Amino acid sequence: MSIKWDEHFNKKTNERLILSTIGEMMRLASEENALSLTAGEPYDLLYPSEALKRAFEKTLNGNLVSHFSYSNERMGIYPLRSWIKKWMADEGLLPSWVTEENIFITSGSQEGLNFVTELLLEEGQTILVESPTYPEALLVFTKEGARFLEVPLEEDGPNIEAFKNLLKKERISFFYSIVNYQNPTGYSTSAQKKKAILELAREHNFLIIEDDPYHHLYYDAPPEKSYLSLAGEDCRVIYLGSFSKIVAPGLRTGWVVAPKEVIDQMLKLRVLSTLCPQTLPQEALFNFLQETNIPEYLSSLRHAYRRHRDAMIEGLEKYVKPLGLSFQIPKGGFFIWGRIPMIKDMHDFARFCIMEEKVAFIPGDIFFAEPSNGKDTIRFSFAKTPPEKAIEGCRRLGSALKKYLEQLQN
Amino acid sequence: MSIKWDEHFNKKTNERLILSTIGEMMRLASEENALSLTAGEPYDLLYPSEALKRAFEKTLNGNLVSHFSYSNERMGIYPLRSWIKKWMADEGLLPSWVTEENIFITSGSQEGLNFVTELLLEEGQTILVESPTYPEALLVFTKEGARFLEVPLEEDGPNIEAFKNLLKKERISFFYSIVNYQNPTGYSTSAQKKKAILELAREHNFLIIEDDPYHHLYYDAPPEKSYLSLAGEDCRVIYLGSFSKIVAPGLRTGWVVAPKEVIDQMLKLRVLSTLCPQTLPQEALFNFLQETNIPEYLSSLRHAYRRHRDAMIEGLEKYVKPLGLSFQIPKGGFFIWGRIPMIKDMHDFARFCIMEEKVAFIPGDIFFAEPSNGKDTIRFSFAKTPPEKAIEGCRRLGSALKKYLEQLQN
Repeated sequence: MSIKWDEHFNKKTNERLILSTIGEMMRLASEENALSLTAGEPYDLLYPSEALKRAFEKTLNGNLVSHFSYSNERMGIYPLRSWIKKWMADEGLLPSWVTEENIFITSGSQEGLNFVTELLLEEGQTILVESPTYPEALLVFTKEGARFLEVPLEEDGPNIEAFKNLLKKERISFFYSIVNYQNPTGYSTSAQKKKAILELAREHNFLIIEDDPYHHLYYDAPPEKSYLSLAGEDCRVIYLGSFSKIVAPGLRTGWVVAPKEVIDQMLKLRVLSTLCPQTLPQEALFNFLQETNIPEYLSSLRHAYRRHRDAMIEGLEKYVKPLGLSFQIPKGGFFIWGRIPMIKDMHDFARFCIMEEKVAFIPGDIFFAEPSNGKDTIRFSFAKTPPEKAIEGCRRLGSALKKYLEQLQN
Repeated sequence: MSIKWDEHFNKKTNERLILSTIGEMMRLASEENALSLTAGEPYDLLYPSEALKRAFEKTLNGNLVSHFSYSNERMGIYPLRSWIKKWMADEGLLPSWVTEENIFITSGSQEGLNFVTELLLEEGQTILVESPTYPEALLVFTKEGARFLEVPLEEDGPNIEAFKNLLKKERISFFYSIVNYQNPTGYSTSAQKKKAILELAREHNFLIIEDDPYHHLYYDAPPEKSYLSLAGEDCRVIYLGSFSKIVAPGLRTGWVVAPKEVIDQMLKLRVLSTLCPQTLPQEALFNFLQETNIPEYLSSLRHAYRRHRDAMIEGLEKYVKPLGLSFQIPKGGFFIWGRIPMIKDMHDFARFCIMEEKVAFIPGDIFFAEPSNGKDTIRFSFAKTPPEKAIEGCRRLGSALKKYLEQLQN
């Protein structure tokens, strides 16, 4: 007996749940054994694996029962929240109202983003996103029934004139921004633009979701002040942090900084969705943070990723730029964003590259809320690609592009 | 500058997110240092802590990088899904269509319940629940905008005549049932009643959510056949399993068995909500399951909890039944469900017990979708209460009840 599932699924499932395109592209690259420039993931050889292992072992030598029970610390364990608070305060990222009770541990920042969206967004409401932006955020917003406005992103942040014009058109619920070394562009928002946008937020009464997973991965100067700290007492900023890019994504540990009113509601969603988090990985992460010289550790991480970036820039300059690729050098993060104006269908070219030259990247149009945008754009990740591989990847890409353009002309 | 948060939260947050009352009651009991008969949690001395520790250590001696990376196994690791499949098949719980691809690992069964509800329920739709039922399930359904019908639960399952009459009144999306040693009643649904309800499900085209966390905790005969296996090829049953009650809740590991169409949608929710699960606790759990004689382990668990149950029954018979408590002896699980007809406000009595005699239980009305029901009902958990404590708890309860009834008469 067969069930007509679309009659049993609700409208959200039938109309608004979308597969991750990045996931699909990464799967294809892996199946075809291609050299992958796709993944927004840290390089596994840079995980502090042995130190994390020791931290887990130390945790397992502690009070086991507390790790194996339901956790009463539904916001996450206090020592970890306290560590994060002190760390962020030392970095100048926090306004004075933030205490440990404003910090909520999440399963990666994805859970934070999903919770915040579930709390704020009414079906059919409009939110403003950067153009381009992180597609897994768009999936969350779409699930909850968002309509989108897109503000063009420039090297120093959103175009302020365009921002103002969009606000004239429509009321927005919130503005979602990846503030530093953005995925996919690598761009960062300047303090000056943040101030201008905070001004607009007060005037038009919208909230700001500040997503900041790449904060510590700067290869030049450190990032400018956060929206959160610039807003001060005006607590309309919800900040998302993550250990995924700087420690290890498999720990699934991120955090949200938010006013108590938001935290209280997130606690209700936590109970509904998983009752409580696991404490063992949190405790192990806390042990790792305690026993590591974090400034030194982060500095060596930046050094390694800077080498990855520089090698890929070198390869692109040598093999792909002469054929028509334009791009900017990112000052941090994992990504290089480019444009190949002769290419009208980057997905077709992406498949061609995987099949013909065993090299993979992400077509840029998937980073736009309006999918007809960015057909000639392209995102490379240098995170998981050590220098020799980066050069080889660029060589293959150049070779593929040459063949592809020749085909186009015939 | 203060923010009017109710203007920024959506309708769901403002109207449909509710605090867990059980959590509140457990907190009060703990603050007042009361002997608690509240928690639906396993007894921590029965966690296989040392074996789990060894299993974690073994996992940490394996391939660390795979545990610290984003997991490609978004449904959960294959070995664990395969173990569950074989185990359930051996127990006769599975129809023939179930493969590893129909098993989806969740963060406790709460995540499974939340996912399934997010997929199925349209705001304003009606679902049918047992009366009484698990309140944390009601919180999930309420969040998604459910309307409720309640079917009276008897010792052998829902009253079938009442079920039929409710279906005449209204179309339902699904029926949610805790099939064995139900929370809060301890009742189990007979195979005969399951067959009758499956018949109704086909006729009225609704789905069945079979929640079965207490399956292996029987103190008499094992449970009867599952809805899932009885339904056979008619795959309208979604089954929720959990390791929380039989291994350790802190592992946050449960699972869903469902048709591929549902699993595919759950995968999309997984990406949106947490990207991927942690693999380390799954791998450790799998190692534990591999290296433990599970039938023997479960048998010793049943032996221990049977002693807890028997002691509490003895205490209630001796100290509380003579004062007016009526109850039935549960054949499994963690709970004893009772009624004290002289008491009109069980919450008032619960607070009195905590303050006057330092003993805590859960007032029964919170287990009803319609909160005016069950004002004289009461739930005790014997799970975390070893025999001597159970007797002492009942003595205190008897003493409190005597005082309280005397006060009522004056």
